[in-house]
Amino acid sequence: MSLRLNCDLGESFGSWKMGLDEAVMPHIDQANIACGFHAGDPLVLQKTLTLAKQNNVTIGAHPGYPDLVGFGRRTIKATPAELKAMVQYQIAAIDGMAATQGLSLSYVKPHGAMYNDMMADAAVRATIMQAIAEYHRPLVLMLQSTPQAEQLLEEAKAAGIELWFEIFADRCYDDDGKLLARTKPGAVHTKEKMLAQVKQLKDQGTVTTVSGHTLNLRADTLCVHGDNMDGVNAIQEIRELITQ
Amino acid sequence: MSLRLNCDLGESFGSWKMGLDEAVMPHIDQANIACGFHAGDPLVLQKTLTLAKQNNVTIGAHPGYPDLVGFGRRTIKATPAELKAMVQYQIAAIDGMAATQGLSLSYVKPHGAMYNDMMADAAVRATIMQAIAEYHRPLVLMLQSTPQAEQLLEEAKAAGIELWFEIFADRCYDDDGKLLARTKPGAVHTKEKMLAQVKQLKDQGTVTTVSGHTLNLRADTLCVHGDNMDGVNAIQEIRELITQ
Amino acid sequence: MSLRLNCDLGESFGSWKMGLDEAVMPHIDQANIACGFHAGDPLVLQKTLTLAKQNNVTIGAHPGYPDLVGFGRRTIKATPAELKAMVQYQIAAIDGMAATQGLSLSYVKPHGAMYNDMMADAAVRATIMQAIAEYHRPLVLMLQSTPQAEQLLEEAKAAGIELWFEIFADRCYDDDGKLLARTKPGAVHTKEKMLAQVKQLKDQGTVTTVSGHTLNLRADTLCVHGDNMDGVNAIQEIRELITQ
Amino acid sequence: MSLRLNCDLGESFGSWKMGLDEAVMPHIDQANIACGFHAGDPLVLQKTLTLAKQNNVTIGAHPGYPDLVGFGRRTIKATPAELKAMVQYQIAAIDGMAATQGLSLSYVKPHGAMYNDMMADAAVRATIMQAIAEYHRPLVLMLQSTPQAEQLLEEAKAAGIELWFEIFADRCYDDDGKLLARTKPGAVHTKEKMLAQVKQLKDQGTVTTVSGHTLNLRADTLCVHGDNMDGVNAIQEIRELITQ
Repeated sequence: MSLRLNCDLGESFGSWKMGLDEAVMPHIDQANIACGFHAGDPLVLQKTLTLAKQNNVTIGAHPGYPDLVGFGRRTIKATPAELKAMVQYQIAAIDGMAATQGLSLSYVKPHGAMYNDMMADAAVRATIMQAIAEYHRPLVLMLQSTPQAEQLLEEAKAAGIELWFEIFADRCYDDDGKLLARTKPGAVHTKEKMLAQVKQLKDQGTVTTVSGHTLNLRADTLCVHGDNMDGVNAIQEIRELITQ
Repeated sequence: MSLRLNCDLGESFGSWKMGLDEAVMPHIDQANIACGFHAGDPLVLQKTLTLAKQNNVTIGAHPGYPDLVGFGRRTIKATPAELKAMVQYQIAAIDGMAATQGLSLSYVKPHGAMYNDMMADAAVRATIMQAIAEYHRPLVLMLQSTPQAEQLLEEAKAAGIELWFEIFADRCYDDDGKLLARTKPGAVHTKEKMLAQVKQLKDQGTVTTVSGHTLNLRADTLCVHGDNMDGVNAIQEIRELITQ
Repeated sequence: MSLRLNCDLGESFGSWKMGLDEAVMPHIDQANIACGFHAGDPLVLQKTLTLAKQNNVTIGAHPGYPDLVGFGRRTIKATPAELKAMVQYQIAAIDGMAATQGLSLSYVKPHGAMYNDMMADAAVRATIMQAIAEYHRPLVLMLQSTPQAEQLLEEAKAAGIELWFEIFADRCYDDDGKLLARTKPGAVHTKEKMLAQVKQLKDQGTVTTVSGHTLNLRADTLCVHGDNMDGVNAIQEIRELITQ
Repeated sequence: MSLRLNCDLGESFGSWKMGLDEAVMPHIDQANIACGFHAGDPLVLQKTLTLAKQNNVTIGAHPGYPDLVGFGRRTIKATPAELKAMVQYQIAAIDGMAATQGLSLSYVKPHGAMYNDMMADAAVRATIMQAIAEYHRPLVLMLQSTPQAEQLLEEAKAAGIELWFEIFADRCYDDDGKLLARTKPGAVHTKEKMLAQVKQLKDQGTVTTVSGHTLNLRADTLCVHGDNMDGVNAIQEIRELITQ
């Protein structure tokens, strides 16, 4: 499988609009679609699925913590049972809505704080893997590529699910393979650096860290952003680069 | 099909408990399970499905308006597009959660104000029928039996869905086949009258109205209530009566 | 009192932005600030109050139905007791937040469907007037100017509250003094017609209806919109016109 | 001031009932009233205030994290600005609702996870103290008594607010003055032990810890629970004991 492009979409809510979904959708491969807990009401979800269908884009559930005002970016210390149920509920909601449009949900990528908690906390990760594994048909878990990919793959194998690893196109990595905190200088790449990072990843399968080290990072897909037209244009340039 | 018993269940929310679900479930045939919009969070939903499975009870979605504080009992004037999406979302959520436990969702019974609006307003009813008809696998719509059953059946046939008609065991009917308003004397039957109404329905297929007229009402299922132990005991007596 | 300009503000929610509040605030007299039920979380509310303070703008509560996904634009059939409590709660929240910044809340203007219900339904209006009258310090009710202003003034007098009447600068009126439905052609004025309507109102105290009749409408304040830069520019032109 | 009794009240929400508020209110001195974010809708809040007024009970705001499904018992990692705004909003809402009934809000006691976070995290505590200090009229902060009372008093003095320390009547303390985790045996006292703990506190101003040590703990008020009739009866026995 060549490098794919994934993007968070369907993040509007009622009268509030977010993201240039119509401009982004034609240029990506995988749409991480909000499921109603942190963003994305039923009508937005339905329309986003239609848009994905029109553009032949693979569909993923993008479940989050139940926190509209915090946009799912704040950790909520849920119990494992609560977390598993909230993940399965959101997966089920988008899965059935997708099937109603003749689409098939392919994967799950947790959103925001749930994503970060999954990467940082093995217990949260185990619960999310179990939620997906228990689901009544197979779904892939998309998560962050790290130097510890082998461990993640073992966990997934034990749970009985498949993984897709993603790299953040526009973010600088530290030597541990983590994203440099947004508060630090250089955390978010300029477009030039972003394109260089993508090119290196495509050609050599590596990323250069903030301190100049080289990391081998498995990458199935690149996370891109379509919040504004600059982002959309950048996505197009990344697309050209990876399909050359 | 003989007369079934259906009951609203899964109406707890977080720390708030409602209904004697464990006491009721063994005595009913069909569980109308709240889907999270007016009651029933993901964990409650999951547990209610497990309880239905243990008791071999048929599962129905019980979607409502998005109004926790109003418990779905207040009409929200949603657009047809909003209504269709919110119904499909809730169906999808419970459908996938059920399938994950090896269960198959069978029907949809709207809750509270959505139910009343469906019975009173042909446009709302058409939207709900369309929501169910579009869903990716067949589901029955459970709705109130009325003297206008033929018209409802025609609407359902046009939409391409099947109907199950329900009678309210404990409610007095007026001459139009509507429920006598709860504000009026005699609106809710005593247990004796309730049992008499059920017996008459079973033996003769009719209901005696508040003014003494006799209505022919098609009945596939009886709606019963398990809010307290009196209700649970009444359900057991109804069960004995209809299985004699 | 000369003609004032009022505008709905503070309608962002969490990560979702709405309205050009910073651009609008310098040009208006009265800010109708969302209170958290249909829009406006606590932090947005706090920041909007600060912005009003910096621009010396009079503050009004803009309470709505508890319906974030519907943005308060859908009627919720609440009981009078529920309606009164939800209005007083929202007034109290903004009142105390304002006082904490050294500001004093002056008035209440219901939002969206609550506003429309208030104008169309005397019972809803009575409940809202009572909610304001009971509040522990005097607040003015801002509502739509109609040819029946005398009746509204009598109701307000009986309730013990003061009224401010508003005219919609950019909306076409029908012969009953109601706003022409948005679905009808000419419902929303071009900028030229809007400015002409404002000028006529200022000079003659009248509005020309869709059919060419002339209505006498009492106007204390004009409702303007700051959703985009065109709206902000229009506000500035209206300001110039009414201060000449 | 002699030892007071405080209790969490107003924790119903819409159709969901919680707590025996009417049975408890006559026996307590201070009502910690939920403000709508984790429990307590506007109508429940209004009725709880009325009940407090009828029983001449002092009123406190009981603000929580915005998490109905989690009942405010799950930490939400809010920013200091978000936390301050959500606390002030909830205080303002109950303060204005109380004043509308001729009542005066006296104090603030955070709920659930917000309370625990306040006790465990100095930064959270500083934000909450600042939220109260900034409020436009003085309010006392009720918090847990600990052996580090002096430090808490210094923080409060620096912030410019007053503190009331509470002891949990029915909970066993560890040697650090913290509550023994509920998962440990003996964490919740039997009624006999509870009464003994209250008597010792009243007579000697001390608490005996799980390991038998004696802690000096300043106590302005005792936290009691009215979830069921056993709780209500226990409150009455505590009342007799402390007023002897």
